[in-house]
Amino acid sequence: MKRVFNFSAGPSMLPLSVLERAAAEMTDANGTGQSVMEMSHRSKDYKPIIENAEALLRELMGVPSNYKVLFLQGGGSLQFAMVPLNLGAPNAAGRRRASYVDTGVWASKAAEEAARFMDAKVVASSKDRAYAYIPAAPAPDPQDAFYHITLNNTIVGTKWSKLPETGSVPLVADISSCILSEPLDVSKFGLLYAGAQKNLGPAGLTVVIVREDLIGKAAAETPTMLRYDIHAKEGSMYNTPPCYAIYVLGLVLEWMKASGGVEAMGKRNLEKAAVLYDYLDSSRMFRCPVDKEFRSLMNIPFVNGDAELEGRAVKEAAAADLVNLAGHRLVGGLRASVYNAMPREGVVALVDFLKRFEAANGR
Amino acid sequence: MKRVFNFSAGPSMLPLSVLERAAAEMTDANGTGQSVMEMSHRSKDYKPIIENAEALLRELMGVPSNYKVLFLQGGGSLQFAMVPLNLGAPNAAGRRRASYVDTGVWASKAAEEAARFMDAKVVASSKDRAYAYIPAAPAPDPQDAFYHITLNNTIVGTKWSKLPETGSVPLVADISSCILSEPLDVSKFGLLYAGAQKNLGPAGLTVVIVREDLIGKAAAETPTMLRYDIHAKEGSMYNTPPCYAIYVLGLVLEWMKASGGVEAMGKRNLEKAAVLYDYLDSSRMFRCPVDKEFRSLMNIPFVNGDAELEGRAVKEAAAADLVNLAGHRLVGGLRASVYNAMPREGVVALVDFLKRFEAANGR
Repeated sequence: MKRVFNFSAGPSMLPLSVLERAAAEMTDANGTGQSVMEMSHRSKDYKPIIENAEALLRELMGVPSNYKVLFLQGGGSLQFAMVPLNLGAPNAAGRRRASYVDTGVWASKAAEEAARFMDAKVVASSKDRAYAYIPAAPAPDPQDAFYHITLNNTIVGTKWSKLPETGSVPLVADISSCILSEPLDVSKFGLLYAGAQKNLGPAGLTVVIVREDLIGKAAAETPTMLRYDIHAKEGSMYNTPPCYAIYVLGLVLEWMKASGGVEAMGKRNLEKAAVLYDYLDSSRMFRCPVDKEFRSLMNIPFVNGDAELEGRAVKEAAAADLVNLAGHRLVGGLRASVYNAMPREGVVALVDFLKRFEAANGR
Repeated sequence: MKRVFNFSAGPSMLPLSVLERAAAEMTDANGTGQSVMEMSHRSKDYKPIIENAEALLRELMGVPSNYKVLFLQGGGSLQFAMVPLNLGAPNAAGRRRASYVDTGVWASKAAEEAARFMDAKVVASSKDRAYAYIPAAPAPDPQDAFYHITLNNTIVGTKWSKLPETGSVPLVADISSCILSEPLDVSKFGLLYAGAQKNLGPAGLTVVIVREDLIGKAAAETPTMLRYDIHAKEGSMYNTPPCYAIYVLGLVLEWMKASGGVEAMGKRNLEKAAVLYDYLDSSRMFRCPVDKEFRSLMNIPFVNGDAELEGRAVKEAAAADLVNLAGHRLVGGLRASVYNAMPREGVVALVDFLKRFEAANGR
């Protein structure tokens, strides 16, 4: 069996032990004589699987009891519509308004989609410097239904180093690329959402964590399948959920718990990221374009400026089993996504490769 | 390894060879050093996987070249909204109208959801006799945007024995529980949709087959992720698709092709269903409540009337590794779902069990 270090922005690496267990249980899970893929979602065989995934997520993230955990489909992109449709209730003046902070492509897409359903204002943006920083967040209008941020920006490699103070206005965050990467105080948020395919499991599962008092105010035009209240009431079983992805999520969370939980993950991720950032800050070939204060622990872009040389680095790295290092087409250069399942050895191997590449192509 | 015969209405059985291959490739698929779950959806490793699944589906179903095949999320329930939002363009009189035939719970839910977005009329219903037949379908109003049927009714066990003639009005069908179970002339339809978790693969994947001229007329309020034109333009990659479920779909379709394709499936399914229907028609304990002309090949309900005896049959069957035979709560009794992956031996084993049960509990 061959294994590579996969630096993809998502879907990306999963712990080998998780994959091995999924393989071992593929034709007969827990002595049921069925694959989890074959289990009726309403059967007594499947019930403990989804309950285990939710319980572990609540435990590891410290989700307060007045929050619902929903297992949905459609990725972050569907949340871009579901958030304004569900949380965008009219204010005292009868207006449906929210504030969005534009910190990159996904943040901007979220704001654009919301603007189709409500008055979604972009109140701050870091577009002026190619999103290389997180802008100062203005205080919210107390009449706003919510305040939306993208906590970690996958493409440009920034993260909010300090949460904005939004008072009574619910803070909503896309945490797709940083969920469970370090401790996060869920109680500071009205709603959190994350596509699973980065830190949680396979693509096709979206986790939504929402404070109960925010549920039940969906706009009249909201399709039933896009209503949080329906999914909350039915325990994510309004229709057939993505059962197998939820099962793999449970395995990943078990691995995470056995690895020390989110505090240990955060410590490990800080160390891993430091290995690469330290190299980049001393390199004469590559540099990270992000302001130090806002550097992501999960997505680390780096550039040289010479596209030919960058392309060659990506190619030679792949030949050395360090794959998917090409930067997003909007940023260019290279990008190493180092999610929870990327072991420290992978980052060390990458830095070793980059040092060799730099020495061989020195300038 | 234990294996059971799983008669669940979905998710349900998958071919053992498919599960074994998925297990074998779990940590290293095609020598990439990655699980398919870990592959970037835009990588050269994943591209042939989604292309293979689409090509096989087109080949096995005989999908004409002027139809798009979309791999989406959200199940049939999300299609209940997407169909009217996308196909419900105003007619010459400025009205958004469609006809729905009510042949059961899911058909009824589809009509109800559509009625939230347009004038969706229920033009025929078989509710008067607990959905035990398919009603005569009235000719469509030529001003209608589409005409919706549920080709196979999972809960009550009926299927359309003859398609309605809808002329120039596009025929739309939910084929979740009968896709690829027997030959179907795709060119008779404007749009077909199916959740994968019955005949295609794991839950979390929805297949939509839509005639190209029907794409691009979505209502203004349609969320971006619910627009067929967006998904068609992006080749089902507007955002991250349910990659692993698409991979398993490909494996299932390879198995189906190697098993002789849809004609062979249809023949085998007819024979399988006959084994059970023949027993039921001769049984003095159980009877199938569905009119013979409209009996489903996939979902076979049967009742006795004595709930205690029915419950005991379900329980004793499970003890004999014949699982998930309880009927839907709305119908009661028992139900055997015998999708493509259920081998003939499973149905024979079920009939043998039922005969023994009947003899032991004779009345």
